[in-house]
Amino acid sequence: MRKPAPLAAGMLVCLGVFLLTGHAAWPETFPMSAATEECISCHVSATPGIVADWKRSLHARVTPAEALKLPSIRKRMSGESIPPELTRNTVGCAECHTLSPPLHEDTFPHNGYPVHTVVTPRNCATCHPVEEEQYRQNIMSRAHHNLMRNQLFRQLVQSINAVTRYTDGRTTLGAEDPISNEDSCLFCHGTVVEVKGFRQVHTIQGEMEFPILSGWPNMGVGRVNPDGSQGACTPCHSRHQFSIEVARNPYACAKCHKGPDVPAYKVYSASKHGAVFAATHHAYDLQSVPWVVGEHFTSPSCAACHISLVVNSDGDLVAERTHRVNDRKAWRLFGLIYAHPTPKNPDTTIIRNRAGLPLPTELTGEPAAEFLIDPKEQNKRRRTMQGVCTSCHSSQWVQGHFRRLEHSIQTTNEMTLTATRIMMDAWSEGVVRGLSAQDGLFNEGMEKQWVEQWLFYANSTRLASAMMGADYGVFAGGRWQMSRTVEQLLDWLHVKRQPKPESGEPKP
Amino acid sequence: MRKPAPLAAGMLVCLGVFLLTGHAAWPETFPMSAATEECISCHVSATPGIVADWKRSLHARVTPAEALKLPSIRKRMSGESIPPELTRNTVGCAECHTLSPPLHEDTFPHNGYPVHTVVTPRNCATCHPVEEEQYRQNIMSRAHHNLMRNQLFRQLVQSINAVTRYTDGRTTLGAEDPISNEDSCLFCHGTVVEVKGFRQVHTIQGEMEFPILSGWPNMGVGRVNPDGSQGACTPCHSRHQFSIEVARNPYACAKCHKGPDVPAYKVYSASKHGAVFAATHHAYDLQSVPWVVGEHFTSPSCAACHISLVVNSDGDLVAERTHRVNDRKAWRLFGLIYAHPTPKNPDTTIIRNRAGLPLPTELTGEPAAEFLIDPKEQNKRRRTMQGVCTSCHSSQWVQGHFRRLEHSIQTTNEMTLTATRIMMDAWSEGVVRGLSAQDGLFNEGMEKQWVEQWLFYANSTRLASAMMGADYGVFAGGRWQMSRTVEQLLDWLHVKRQPKPESGEPKP
Amino acid sequence: MRKPAPLAAGMLVCLGVFLLTGHAAWPETFPMSAATEECISCHVSATPGIVADWKRSLHARVTPAEALKLPSIRKRMSGESIPPELTRNTVGCAECHTLSPPLHEDTFPHNGYPVHTVVTPRNCATCHPVEEEQYRQNIMSRAHHNLMRNQLFRQLVQSINAVTRYTDGRTTLGAEDPISNEDSCLFCHGTVVEVKGFRQVHTIQGEMEFPILSGWPNMGVGRVNPDGSQGACTPCHSRHQFSIEVARNPYACAKCHKGPDVPAYKVYSASKHGAVFAATHHAYDLQSVPWVVGEHFTSPSCAACHISLVVNSDGDLVAERTHRVNDRKAWRLFGLIYAHPTPKNPDTTIIRNRAGLPLPTELTGEPAAEFLIDPKEQNKRRRTMQGVCTSCHSSQWVQGHFRRLEHSIQTTNEMTLTATRIMMDAWSEGVVRGLSAQDGLFNEGMEKQWVEQWLFYANSTRLASAMMGADYGVFAGGRWQMSRTVEQLLDWLHVKRQPKPESGEPKP
Repeated sequence: MRKPAPLAAGMLVCLGVFLLTGHAAWPETFPMSAATEECISCHVSATPGIVADWKRSLHARVTPAEALKLPSIRKRMSGESIPPELTRNTVGCAECHTLSPPLHEDTFPHNGYPVHTVVTPRNCATCHPVEEEQYRQNIMSRAHHNLMRNQLFRQLVQSINAVTRYTDGRTTLGAEDPISNEDSCLFCHGTVVEVKGFRQVHTIQGEMEFPILSGWPNMGVGRVNPDGSQGACTPCHSRHQFSIEVARNPYACAKCHKGPDVPAYKVYSASKHGAVFAATHHAYDLQSVPWVVGEHFTSPSCAACHISLVVNSDGDLVAERTHRVNDRKAWRLFGLIYAHPTPKNPDTTIIRNRAGLPLPTELTGEPAAEFLIDPKEQNKRRRTMQGVCTSCHSSQWVQGHFRRLEHSIQTTNEMTLTATRIMMDAWSEGVVRGLSAQDGLFNEGMEKQWVEQWLFYANSTRLASAMMGADYGVFAGGRWQMSRTVEQLLDWLHVKRQPKPESGEPKP
Repeated sequence: MRKPAPLAAGMLVCLGVFLLTGHAAWPETFPMSAATEECISCHVSATPGIVADWKRSLHARVTPAEALKLPSIRKRMSGESIPPELTRNTVGCAECHTLSPPLHEDTFPHNGYPVHTVVTPRNCATCHPVEEEQYRQNIMSRAHHNLMRNQLFRQLVQSINAVTRYTDGRTTLGAEDPISNEDSCLFCHGTVVEVKGFRQVHTIQGEMEFPILSGWPNMGVGRVNPDGSQGACTPCHSRHQFSIEVARNPYACAKCHKGPDVPAYKVYSASKHGAVFAATHHAYDLQSVPWVVGEHFTSPSCAACHISLVVNSDGDLVAERTHRVNDRKAWRLFGLIYAHPTPKNPDTTIIRNRAGLPLPTELTGEPAAEFLIDPKEQNKRRRTMQGVCTSCHSSQWVQGHFRRLEHSIQTTNEMTLTATRIMMDAWSEGVVRGLSAQDGLFNEGMEKQWVEQWLFYANSTRLASAMMGADYGVFAGGRWQMSRTVEQLLDWLHVKRQPKPESGEPKP
Repeated sequence: MRKPAPLAAGMLVCLGVFLLTGHAAWPETFPMSAATEECISCHVSATPGIVADWKRSLHARVTPAEALKLPSIRKRMSGESIPPELTRNTVGCAECHTLSPPLHEDTFPHNGYPVHTVVTPRNCATCHPVEEEQYRQNIMSRAHHNLMRNQLFRQLVQSINAVTRYTDGRTTLGAEDPISNEDSCLFCHGTVVEVKGFRQVHTIQGEMEFPILSGWPNMGVGRVNPDGSQGACTPCHSRHQFSIEVARNPYACAKCHKGPDVPAYKVYSASKHGAVFAATHHAYDLQSVPWVVGEHFTSPSCAACHISLVVNSDGDLVAERTHRVNDRKAWRLFGLIYAHPTPKNPDTTIIRNRAGLPLPTELTGEPAAEFLIDPKEQNKRRRTMQGVCTSCHSSQWVQGHFRRLEHSIQTTNEMTLTATRIMMDAWSEGVVRGLSAQDGLFNEGMEKQWVEQWLFYANSTRLASAMMGADYGVFAGGRWQMSRTVEQLLDWLHVKRQPKPESGEPKP
């Protein structure tokens, strides 16, 4: 009953169709490689969902040869020098899962083919090399190492995922727990996928041998792959339809950008952009390349502002496609522990502040400037982003908006500093054990409240300012919670200063 | 503008239609019983929304006689021996609301018909006896009694819903509050619906007498009905369209599985499954029976994994339909206070642990094994669930996933134990009054923090592991909050040990 | 693949079309004014998104002259005496942005036209005077002044948005922060938009001068406009498509009614109404006027119950359209600090309780009755709302539902009173500094917990009762949190009574 345009009811006759893709017979004329055909002959029964999903993909319907003929602006492929034997057939199972055996330590013999389970950005680079190159420079592709090879951040991971035990009136943090790490932080950051042996499995085809993979399954953005590459394309471009529609929907990003540490999706969905997208995207075209603002979509999703190739109706460029998401970002709003200019290098493990800590700012907020982009580069990236805004908003509007964002970065950093100063008293008085007491920064009650100040509330507030989801900057984990945390830290500092009675004595 | 397949734009001509159900004239040829026709003649004005909704239902369009002719795999009806007089007409108002007078204490004379307001599973069993039988063995159908006839759980309900008063420097919990119970816990668990008298109502038809029903309205899964049955079909199969589409959408489950105690829907919507479903379900067929994986849907909703009859494109069975949701569950992830193997009997009021408490585990976590399924039965149910997973995922994938889930059950139970051990010190020292002090377990500040450890955070973490919504296992009510709660409990234990000054004395 | 009706698959042939609005060529025959045409000639390049969006609007497709010919029940325009020169052309840029220069202090010369950036309700009243008149009586239109001109509420704003600093062991609240206010509370409440000067901007047309506007951008419901009017239509009727569909979707309301202080959208989306809307609204008609219950929609969105003109299939009135949302509300569920009868006057700055505070109740809950509607008026408004309910629900159902809501208002007010009584002891003992100590009510740790009791948890519980989203009345910020907060306040009262050691002394 829904009608895309209210006056059009009378026109609802005999003109079109709602293509029933799933019900359509599969046109056997799409040229599949013999190897892929052999894969499918079993897997259509073994894993029917994947096969059906793939059949709906462009990979299954278009050969690279055809795709290469498209005009540049409409191309989804960026490779020009694809091995000729790959251009004639559609892109099927064998094309992605068998053609890189020397690189893949996870390759195993499977019905006569050298198959590897994990398809990596390096594999995708066969046809999409520009995207792979950009993504390698995207800080997201280093998310595993940036977290786990930073001593301080790894301490945070440990304080969350290891089991705490209580004995003799004290709590002790247990050993690092790799499985819990995979199941929590590394789910989004990416695991290390390595071959740990082989095992026999009884299948419908009899006994078969498969590699045992550590850290599998995983679709984290900074996954460390068995071919030595880092990253994954599948967090956004979901298997096996690899539809650009899925990546352009905000839900793709929500998988990792929804929690209280980085509630970007929630902020978006509480914004005008999110509200209009939710109400009207049934009438959008989320498939077309390039993406024409106003024609294919009105209200932007995450991709429109941060990643996609956007043009206007005249075909003029609004924004170039980038898989180096930092390209449109002047600031890293994510506070560690303060918001700071975007790091120059996607590998942030190299950063050291003046105090020698692996943090992009001092504990008191001053940026570790040599590792971060300078104001000129910040301006450039800000202007790139603003180019998208001005498709729909006046310069008055855009200037007012960015003024608020800058102010929010400053005030939230100040509120983090206030909380940190209370902690510094607590640490220096010894009522809480910190770095100088050879203890972690994240494992006591007050420390955990302090972490929430910057990791949850300051982050949420800045995202709310950036994307106009004001709730998340006030009562939904925003300024209210920042001011509350400061007062509660102060209350606890007073409590902690009181002499502690011996444990175990029954109260009178 | 949205197109199901990107290459199909050129084919958008003259082939199909978007059926405008709501605007279509009602085909008066659908054979309605005379009684139903009489109901509708008034109710089309009295409650037009219901009537219009019902007119869109299959109940209004198909007679049982026609439905019985379908091949078994396509049947939605499971009854074979339906009273002949019911098979010739469509299933209308009278068929559900008038035909069980002897059983229904809520039956009242209404325009010459014996009408009962509350339609129960026993009524639905006329045509759907297999589903009703399964649902009776589903733990959900006992949700009212399992909560309210368990002394400890009822104490929890009481501590939440009764009004707390503050007098003379102390808090006191008021009397049990049946209306607040109906409005909170029992909204999902189900109320007790009983006839409490009759009252005159002035209607467009003049004065009429209607029964006064306790606990009404309610669509809780374990509702205690005026015909003596337990449960309700309408929580998922919403009135009066009873569309399978509504039940297959994740929102149906979200009504009761969204809060911090059981954030299943939130976890799902942060998962890959949820993201892909949200982005692509506009192109799914959520109506067909059986439900063909890959053809009718790609990414599963709750129903696909837990309930629905799923087949593959060859018509091979992936999973049998079940309304005994426990059939596919090895564990009860919901901690009471620890996660434990699924109870054998849907009636959990019979469970006693070794300490004599009505809990499926000891306070220190050991399962009350005789009331719970054994490892062999757990394996069987796990394999049933994994059968759905393998429609789309390799055995490597599935094995890795379930290994994490098992680990998460173990570590979250350990974190619950840590918190419980702190409480045991608090209770034994008398700084918090527990069972041995003839006091509740859930009514003081520290106790409430302890409850959140298992009821919110451990539950959330396990659901996140089960459904790959990692946020809910880390920062969104997950492992972060578990470790924080442990430290905060310890802080409070220290505070509580300090001698308490007299109240009312002004501070110096 | 989705089919609106399951039996209709066979009918999916050659009957209709999915109108591809966006791809359709723009019919140049829609009569645009010469001024609008000139605007568009540049802005199609300068801000292509806006122009494309507007082209999909009814404003761009229908002239007021045509719209005036519609029968009254189908009219979206309420003005009868529109200046003749405005009726012949569609409603374009110039019609809204240039025709009120004398009133608009933000008017500036722009390519020969007197343009004003901010379109206000007074502008919209040219064609929609009834809606504008109603909205002026809607409490929402006063949201800025009601917040910022109430001394106590402004203190709350200040305690949230000003930066807190920590020096010498004490916290101090910084100066009022207008930019943070705009970015948080005033985002929804509305800013004060005033001309603060002019600035030169380099555009594709060369140097141009634009006014510098304070508080811009803003789409808050109570915005104070440069033409002296209060309010904005765009929070719900989003620019520049102004589609009624957007306003009828629940997401429109969610922008400001989602946070923990007023989680109306979250409650709705956890309710049966929300679940069915989410699952089935793809088949609704959210565009038609009037809105026919059962035909155009089944499950109501926010607008259906609170605002829209709803009729039944016979054309009988179910509810009149109102932009004075209070028309259907007996109570103001939003506690300040207690829920209370709806205020008589949308300007609530005039309210004083017996204690002289600008609050609609005493601190102990008794209503400031002379400023609030009386029980008779409450009954009238309740019956208006119930008229919508009875489109789909029996009188038994409706009576049971409203009984619970009334009970919830009473018990949540009691729980607020309990928390307030604990605070009154804290204030009178001087362990927390309150009004009698010339200090704020919202700036210390215990005070902030107390605020959450009424602003978050009591509000959430009442909304859950009103809209049947039970989770939000139990564990998701509901009764559980109310009872927990009471116990925690009591714990803190005991802690605060203990003598405070000197700061800065290291622990032994």
